Amino acid sequence: MPRRFKLTIAYDGRPYDGWQSQSAGNTVQDLLQDAATAIAKQPVAVHGAGRTDAGVHALGQVAHFDAPEDNTMSAEDWQRALHTKLPRTIRVVGSDEVPGDFHCRYSAKRKTYRYEIDTEPIHSPLRVGLAWHVYYQLDGALLHEALSLFRGKQDFANLAANRRGGKLVQTTFRTIYRADLTTREHGYDLIFEGDGFLYKMVRMMVGAAVDCARGRGSVDQIKAMLENAGGAGKCSSCAPSDGLYLVGVDYSGAGAD
Amino acid sequence: MPRRFKLTIAYDGRPYDGWQSQSAGNTVQDLLQDAATAIAKQPVAVHGAGRTDAGVHALGQVAHFDAPEDNTMSAEDWQRALHTKLPRTIRVVGSDEVPGDFHCRYSAKRKTYRYEIDTEPIHSPLRVGLAWHVYYQLDGALLHEALSLFRGKQDFANLAANRRGGKLVQTTFRTIYRADLTTREHGYDLIFEGDGFLYKMVRMMVGAAVDCARGRGSVDQIKAMLENAGGAGKCSSCAPSDGLYLVGVDYSGAGAD
Repeated sequence: MPRRFKLTIAYDGRPYDGWQSQSAGNTVQDLLQDAATAIAKQPVAVHGAGRTDAGVHALGQVAHFDAPEDNTMSAEDWQRALHTKLPRTIRVVGSDEVPGDFHCRYSAKRKTYRYEIDTEPIHSPLRVGLAWHVYYQLDGALLHEALSLFRGKQDFANLAANRRGGKLVQTTFRTIYRADLTTREHGYDLIFEGDGFLYKMVRMMVGAAVDCARGRGSVDQIKAMLENAGGAGKCSSCAPSDGLYLVGVDYSGAGAD
Repeated sequence: MPRRFKLTIAYDGRPYDGWQSQSAGNTVQDLLQDAATAIAKQPVAVHGAGRTDAGVHALGQVAHFDAPEDNTMSAEDWQRALHTKLPRTIRVVGSDEVPGDFHCRYSAKRKTYRYEIDTEPIHSPLRVGLAWHVYYQLDGALLHEALSLFRGKQDFANLAANRRGGKLVQTTFRTIYRADLTTREHGYDLIFEGDGFLYKMVRMMVGAAVDCARGRGSVDQIKAMLENAGGAGKCSSCAPSDGLYLVGVDYSGAGAD
């Protein structure tokens, strides 16, 4: 039985075409697979807990792979070796050997995302691509109220985009445990914790909440999107990828981590 | 008499070949001049308070230019117009009309630099190029002591590099008003304030102080560099450009600002 390793990965999303492997090869998954394959001197498949779009950052993306049968490297050996092959904008912040039934995607219980909004009049050159610069005056209380609507188990069909290729999704119900914000000097950090997220769901929740907080949309419109999930009223705002961070994937209760 | 404008400029140093104009054109000064020239529809020369090397960032670089005689734009007009021409990693954070005898370089009284050092075991992918990642164990008290040696009016010849082309420097004496540090969770922010800095002087002071704090150099070696400025003992360590930020240029007492 091959030994399985769980990697916790941080990356700057700006230089890459997202997580998911593509033919052009400039994705985080491709670079990890290329690195692991070069180290093992045979093909290694790296699986991810979920996709992140181009420009989305990660502090705690999770992946797993099986080492080749004859490979005796420890989790720490893999971490060190991967760091010699990966660009500095991708780092393995955790490396653990896990049971063979651990699967980074199917064993995941919760995911946490953060979305950073900057509101200073002139956006800092050092924050380009790392936050959404919102010029409009935002009403913090309305932003807070809008976020509160996303909590609980609900049908988020109106707050999700269709995957390219129209992949079937079995259910559009998701449970959101946490949707709130903290205030910074010139901005907001929005936090979302849930049992899973549909495609572009975090960015559409942020888009709808910001619309509400700038007076372009209303709390009632968000309520209607959630209550009338089969019908019209799909969210038309999607926040840019710049401000989105996959903070972590939680496996507690899954026998690993 | 042409009207003179003072610009305060912030930039991410990573994409550019430094401040100073070059034939390849990918410098902050070139981009500002190109933008101002396009707006004025005639050549505009933009002067800077001082050079920053490739990779060095600025929060408050200062520049000035003279508007063409027939131009009636206000300082705010210039700021807005420049922002439509400049990349998002260069921003004009201040724009003021100043007396014709103001010169961003010759009127400057003080400059402030910050140098950021990150010490966490694995460097954050989001801090690549924004800080010096120091792997070595640093002794904070020694770092502090080393910095204190730089204060006052001293001959910094041993803590400066020669400019390419060997430009004559009239004096290598400089007065440092402030050289200290603040501690972050995983790092240090070093602050330097002085009446001027020689070429690479901040990075060599940081290099010498870090050598000292990691046990490779000593406080006595730094003392000797400063006391024996005409002789041997030149500093051999130069911290990378990544961590260096030009925080601001102070003109108080100069009749402008």
